[in-house]
Amino acid sequence: MSEHSTGWRDLGFARLDTARAQRTGDPEVVFGGGKTPEQTVELLRALHEQHPDRAVLATRVDQPAQAAVAAEFGAAAEIDPQARCVVLGPQPTPRGSALVVAAGTSDLPVAQEAAVSARVFGTSVEVITDVGVAGIHRLFDVRDQLNGADCLIVVAGMEGALPSVVGGLTGVPLVAVPTSVGYGASFGGVAALLAMMNSCAPGVVVVNIDNGFGAGVHAARVARRAAGGVA
Amino acid sequence: MSEHSTGWRDLGFARLDTARAQRTGDPEVVFGGGKTPEQTVELLRALHEQHPDRAVLATRVDQPAQAAVAAEFGAAAEIDPQARCVVLGPQPTPRGSALVVAAGTSDLPVAQEAAVSARVFGTSVEVITDVGVAGIHRLFDVRDQLNGADCLIVVAGMEGALPSVVGGLTGVPLVAVPTSVGYGASFGGVAALLAMMNSCAPGVVVVNIDNGFGAGVHAARVARRAAGGVA
Amino acid sequence: MSEHSTGWRDLGFARLDTARAQRTGDPEVVFGGGKTPEQTVELLRALHEQHPDRAVLATRVDQPAQAAVAAEFGAAAEIDPQARCVVLGPQPTPRGSALVVAAGTSDLPVAQEAAVSARVFGTSVEVITDVGVAGIHRLFDVRDQLNGADCLIVVAGMEGALPSVVGGLTGVPLVAVPTSVGYGASFGGVAALLAMMNSCAPGVVVVNIDNGFGAGVHAARVARRAAGGVA
Amino acid sequence: MSEHSTGWRDLGFARLDTARAQRTGDPEVVFGGGKTPEQTVELLRALHEQHPDRAVLATRVDQPAQAAVAAEFGAAAEIDPQARCVVLGPQPTPRGSALVVAAGTSDLPVAQEAAVSARVFGTSVEVITDVGVAGIHRLFDVRDQLNGADCLIVVAGMEGALPSVVGGLTGVPLVAVPTSVGYGASFGGVAALLAMMNSCAPGVVVVNIDNGFGAGVHAARVARRAAGGVA
Amino acid sequence: MSEHSTGWRDLGFARLDTARAQRTGDPEVVFGGGKTPEQTVELLRALHEQHPDRAVLATRVDQPAQAAVAAEFGAAAEIDPQARCVVLGPQPTPRGSALVVAAGTSDLPVAQEAAVSARVFGTSVEVITDVGVAGIHRLFDVRDQLNGADCLIVVAGMEGALPSVVGGLTGVPLVAVPTSVGYGASFGGVAALLAMMNSCAPGVVVVNIDNGFGAGVHAARVARRAAGGVA
Amino acid sequence: MSEHSTGWRDLGFARLDTARAQRTGDPEVVFGGGKTPEQTVELLRALHEQHPDRAVLATRVDQPAQAAVAAEFGAAAEIDPQARCVVLGPQPTPRGSALVVAAGTSDLPVAQEAAVSARVFGTSVEVITDVGVAGIHRLFDVRDQLNGADCLIVVAGMEGALPSVVGGLTGVPLVAVPTSVGYGASFGGVAALLAMMNSCAPGVVVVNIDNGFGAGVHAARVARRAAGGVA
Amino acid sequence: MSEHSTGWRDLGFARLDTARAQRTGDPEVVFGGGKTPEQTVELLRALHEQHPDRAVLATRVDQPAQAAVAAEFGAAAEIDPQARCVVLGPQPTPRGSALVVAAGTSDLPVAQEAAVSARVFGTSVEVITDVGVAGIHRLFDVRDQLNGADCLIVVAGMEGALPSVVGGLTGVPLVAVPTSVGYGASFGGVAALLAMMNSCAPGVVVVNIDNGFGAGVHAARVARRAAGGVA
Amino acid sequence: MSEHSTGWRDLGFARLDTARAQRTGDPEVVFGGGKTPEQTVELLRALHEQHPDRAVLATRVDQPAQAAVAAEFGAAAEIDPQARCVVLGPQPTPRGSALVVAAGTSDLPVAQEAAVSARVFGTSVEVITDVGVAGIHRLFDVRDQLNGADCLIVVAGMEGALPSVVGGLTGVPLVAVPTSVGYGASFGGVAALLAMMNSCAPGVVVVNIDNGFGAGVHAARVARRAAGGVA
Repeated sequence: MSEHSTGWRDLGFARLDTARAQRTGDPEVVFGGGKTPEQTVELLRALHEQHPDRAVLATRVDQPAQAAVAAEFGAAAEIDPQARCVVLGPQPTPRGSALVVAAGTSDLPVAQEAAVSARVFGTSVEVITDVGVAGIHRLFDVRDQLNGADCLIVVAGMEGALPSVVGGLTGVPLVAVPTSVGYGASFGGVAALLAMMNSCAPGVVVVNIDNGFGAGVHAARVARRAAGGVA
Repeated sequence: MSEHSTGWRDLGFARLDTARAQRTGDPEVVFGGGKTPEQTVELLRALHEQHPDRAVLATRVDQPAQAAVAAEFGAAAEIDPQARCVVLGPQPTPRGSALVVAAGTSDLPVAQEAAVSARVFGTSVEVITDVGVAGIHRLFDVRDQLNGADCLIVVAGMEGALPSVVGGLTGVPLVAVPTSVGYGASFGGVAALLAMMNSCAPGVVVVNIDNGFGAGVHAARVARRAAGGVA
Repeated sequence: MSEHSTGWRDLGFARLDTARAQRTGDPEVVFGGGKTPEQTVELLRALHEQHPDRAVLATRVDQPAQAAVAAEFGAAAEIDPQARCVVLGPQPTPRGSALVVAAGTSDLPVAQEAAVSARVFGTSVEVITDVGVAGIHRLFDVRDQLNGADCLIVVAGMEGALPSVVGGLTGVPLVAVPTSVGYGASFGGVAALLAMMNSCAPGVVVVNIDNGFGAGVHAARVARRAAGGVA
Repeated sequence: MSEHSTGWRDLGFARLDTARAQRTGDPEVVFGGGKTPEQTVELLRALHEQHPDRAVLATRVDQPAQAAVAAEFGAAAEIDPQARCVVLGPQPTPRGSALVVAAGTSDLPVAQEAAVSARVFGTSVEVITDVGVAGIHRLFDVRDQLNGADCLIVVAGMEGALPSVVGGLTGVPLVAVPTSVGYGASFGGVAALLAMMNSCAPGVVVVNIDNGFGAGVHAARVARRAAGGVA
Repeated sequence: MSEHSTGWRDLGFARLDTARAQRTGDPEVVFGGGKTPEQTVELLRALHEQHPDRAVLATRVDQPAQAAVAAEFGAAAEIDPQARCVVLGPQPTPRGSALVVAAGTSDLPVAQEAAVSARVFGTSVEVITDVGVAGIHRLFDVRDQLNGADCLIVVAGMEGALPSVVGGLTGVPLVAVPTSVGYGASFGGVAALLAMMNSCAPGVVVVNIDNGFGAGVHAARVARRAAGGVA
Repeated sequence: MSEHSTGWRDLGFARLDTARAQRTGDPEVVFGGGKTPEQTVELLRALHEQHPDRAVLATRVDQPAQAAVAAEFGAAAEIDPQARCVVLGPQPTPRGSALVVAAGTSDLPVAQEAAVSARVFGTSVEVITDVGVAGIHRLFDVRDQLNGADCLIVVAGMEGALPSVVGGLTGVPLVAVPTSVGYGASFGGVAALLAMMNSCAPGVVVVNIDNGFGAGVHAARVARRAAGGVA
Repeated sequence: MSEHSTGWRDLGFARLDTARAQRTGDPEVVFGGGKTPEQTVELLRALHEQHPDRAVLATRVDQPAQAAVAAEFGAAAEIDPQARCVVLGPQPTPRGSALVVAAGTSDLPVAQEAAVSARVFGTSVEVITDVGVAGIHRLFDVRDQLNGADCLIVVAGMEGALPSVVGGLTGVPLVAVPTSVGYGASFGGVAALLAMMNSCAPGVVVVNIDNGFGAGVHAARVARRAAGGVA
Repeated sequence: MSEHSTGWRDLGFARLDTARAQRTGDPEVVFGGGKTPEQTVELLRALHEQHPDRAVLATRVDQPAQAAVAAEFGAAAEIDPQARCVVLGPQPTPRGSALVVAAGTSDLPVAQEAAVSARVFGTSVEVITDVGVAGIHRLFDVRDQLNGADCLIVVAGMEGALPSVVGGLTGVPLVAVPTSVGYGASFGGVAALLAMMNSCAPGVVVVNIDNGFGAGVHAARVARRAAGGVA
């Protein structure tokens, strides 16, 4: 393992971007997909050493890697099995607020990944679930919550219509997250992705299918700026 | 031109299905797309001769063919330029009612094709426009009209979310029509088509992109049965 | 668990739409896909409590969830393993009739899901199977049955040609259901879906691949209106 | 222009395959698409010089090139404007027979290209049109013709169902030709192509969208072999 | 089980098309995909009873169904594990000949399915393998065999170039079979399918990905006609 | 023309959403695509009457409609031919700032649409162009500008790599806009859209192809909140 | 217009990358697609001023821009109308050699763009045309030329099989260029692109559809290194 | 097993191309995908017998086949489990050098397959990993290494942006390899493939998704020529 003055650290199997927090305000994040439990543990430890005062995050952590993390870090690591996320180190003081709105119960893992990510990136978060457009009155009942947030994350699979309806009710910045929930001609979330891309509500922005993490990061950055902070 | 006892008539360039009304309750329809004005006129005349007491229909009639029809049949032919449809002969007595609901003004040509088709196939029709999901209160104001129809035709482009919202408000049979309105990743109506296919509202059925005609036929058959008739 | 006056009930992991029957004439349905056996059981029980006099339905119930349902509700729950459906509570008196026509034996699970759904939504149903277009005489033998129904559900995979042929033989409202039966360039049902979307028979409407449920709901609503009822 | 002993001739802008007839039994064919009228004329002349006793063919010849051909070769060239084909030189004595069956009038240009090609490649041809599956009785009336041919060419756009129905009625070798006739989710013939690829009738083979030429060549080769000849 | 005078037999789970041999010259074939071993056995037995003097065929028979067939029919059933085919009853006297040419060893299962099918449908067959275009001299060595066949079946995955090269060497009718051999942007055989569809060699016809059966049927029908027979 | 108390105004051909500014903080916007010059003029006038103190916007205004707007409103209307946008009425006081970064000169129309939209939605905007990733030093020279903005809009066609590089240099909220610039396998912007969707830089959000408007709206909402305001 | 010390020049509508030749050995190239004739002329002039001793290149120059270039630079500019390329300034001394092989005459514009580009990037080039795989003997006649080149550029549309065959005959580095030549299921060159991507000949590399320029650049860089030079 | 004078050897299940090294300078390679361990062992042995003085290669060798190789050849076979490659026989003296650059740790198996292949095909290789574009300073630190290589292989998944950035920094010939690393709308590497195809850096060439082998072969051929050798 070697430290490079220009801002990276050589772990042998990876070059940790140690200058990212300095450049972007937030440390690098471990994407657990396709990594061994050992690699996930080692990357988390290296990031934590780099940022002892600030929570670091791993996403897409499967069950074996969650177990390895628990064995290694014990209670110091906060594991969210539904979101498949791990948080290591003290959470930052939240600034501003994000609200995650999910269309159905099957969208919850993605919604929860968004929530955990937004929290680690420095904003407070709440999650509302099961307000799909086929029973739209459930959505009207939470309208004040929608308007009270600094940034909205709207999660939906199938026809992906929820962001359009929410985006017509409020002017709060809105990130849409298509999920792979559906079957047949939903094509693993492509139907929802296309619908969100083509939303008739102005200003809807979209992340990749099931990418709760990306939505959480964007929302946190928007929310903490709205609260008067940057990093 | 020759008549075949088994139910077709040879026009040289086409075999008219003269037995269709007997089999299905409705005469054959002229699809004007890709036909010359002369072919459209000749097919309309042959159908009209076969069914003098009942309106016959041509769809996708472009401007030159509309002019040829006007020159040939004069006031006997009812031409709808927005719907690009021609109706020849007396309209049937309407039974039951269909309601066409369109998301935006750009969807009107398709909505109008649906309306004309449903009328010729024997039901009364009304059209409501510009009730897209980004301003959903416009939709709630017409809720009684929705519930009063025997069949709904919901027309939308872009993200195609309207059928899901309408389908959550009423149990009236609902046919969704995706339109090619949109740009970029709408792929000429594919985004709307997929959204409608994946609607979370139960019982939504779909026709091809811009196929107002097909929706009108289905709605008319449903509506006239609801009113106690079949053909 | 809490009851909201505006029409939903909070189950913790889901917001049950308790006002749906009032709005649409039919209660909410449990989509079992991606749900745990416990969630399916709990949702069925909550729906049944809400609608004690009327059968409630769960679809896409896998074997473990079927077992959990059987353990929980015993004979009160009617389980159809081929359709992967569960019905709880007394079936409604059927009004009107739907006929399900399937192209091949591999299409039977989807056909059966359509049949069960149509029955729960209030119409009587019959199923005819193995009348694919490569042996079209089998279809002609059932022509009277086709004309006798209030709504047809035509189920086919592979090239999806059956709805076009049936739609040319009768004017009864027709819902086409593409199935994922096939291989290679059938793309999991896309070939059949596209074929049905482009049917040359007027008035054919289509649902998502393998969506027997959606076809059943639409057909039941059409059929019971034809028989003089709405909900 | 130079002659190469190994079997090609250099025209400057093209290398004519002068050995093709020797290898495959049939001379090279001019594909007029994307060629200038002058190139089409020059290639036809070169081919004709190479094969003075046998008709040579150009396909996809647009109107300017048809005019150039007429000006250059006069009555010696047989021009079929609907098929957009040109034939130069004496037709071969036909052996065996092919039958072209087209679903609709809009499919006629492709059907005609198939017919002209099959004739030049040495078999006799007939064309039947407008026997689409929505009026299937028109097809039964020509059943004897189907069984009497040595090879069938079945041309259809939209849902492309006709080959499956014909292939269920007869065991004559059958080539399916999807056409670009249709709109919306027909995707320029892809829907018909996929349907034909997935035909439930055994032994259906397929050519590219609108490729009447390819179907004609295959059918002629099959038919003339059936009649006891090869080239 | 009941017999219908119009040509089908009701097996409960299937309607056997008992008139197919009369209509098309060949009996129905069992597609084993998605069927239980019991269904495959029962269908084979029913077909064999219908056609005791003529081999009947089942394709896509997985290992459990092969075992069930072996247990039921013993040596009377010929099982080809590579082709996953079962033949029951005496093979017909072969007329004419088909030649199967495969690009690589991975294409052999599909090539073998084609060979077995062509043999059951009444022609003699040989198979040549591993003559891919990257070592094209292997192909030239078998040129006489190519020209000696009545119909060619050319099987290839990956870039699917072999039919174009073979089609440039000989005028024998040629059926191309794309296989799902490949990875990445081969998309499960789509790359090969598209290449074959767009072959610059005239008269190449194509079947579905991995559809050796369809190619075998077509080739047999062509070959036995070339040998002076039809069914 | 009629006013509805629930928040819409009937223009005959459209239902203006007069309550949108109240719900979302910003008035409705005229999408000029597919509208006649007269419709665009009339919608602009109606919006302007509704919001006399605040600029209203029309996008995708083609040249004839630009001319009609100029003839109708004279200098009161600000027309940007490159962006194809029209602004009518006094611009709001800008709060916060957005920065538009475009990869190439061909991306300028989309970048400019984003800039005009962001300005009308209430934030100040600057545009930097031609900083594509193949000459990445041009990007480093503007790094301070990147960090100084409240929201970034990054516009790129072809491989769409710019947002990933920018997103690795700064933590400012970033909206990526794929453009249809490119050819061949860029598929009208799909390649860039997919690249942006899959950005390895965390928090990148995406809008539809060429949708500068949507990006401008989102960026303005983020920027004005960062400056302490909402609507 | 301003000069930046870090290596770019501001033309107002573009930032010229003046340091590219220093970084990569070759100056920036003008992509004429989507640019006005004036922009193309100005960019060429600026590049020429920067590199007076070395030819600079513009590609995809349409006819109006070619005329503007001719008017501006006269004989100093070499215009190739078939390749749609313009070269300004003295050609570099060629090192090494590239050979362009095109399948058909319709592929010539792309082949010629490759040739012009390779020449400007510093290698000598020859072009061989019309050696498609359906007449493969034409290819064998040029085998020595293939082996004599330092890099091959193989251009083909339709099924794109030529690179596989050439790649099996020689070990010279080979760049494949798919062209948009074809129709129907060639999807504007996608069929050829996929075929080349899946070539069974090892080491075949591919550029975008119709991207002769990219192939020429790569080939020149390979060839001049083979001749002992780099830039 | 039989030897053919024209250059192939019949192994029963395969025709080994024994003349390939003579034609292309390199022996045939065993593609292990879809082969049994026995077939892989036998093909390796046959190739090794043919080329005793030169390393032969097998790629895509799964664990069972690796075990069979180890059991058969012992230390004579070099097995790389990460690359899933086997090398048998003495490595050639390396000429020139290739450099493999990988964006992330998940891309390592593909990068390693490229490295092993390039080495067997006769050039020296180094691998640099984890220099993705979101932390682009890591890339600048290796700029001298980039410029020192004779050919670059740039491996990336997700948005596939790395080749564009590297291609803007250096003029060394560059082969881009998209990997299937990613999720959602990365479509198994298609997003990266399209991005690389559309790279704005001139001269970038691309191989199939995950095709490290193909990139290695091309790079080795380029590098050894640059070093003054061919085969």
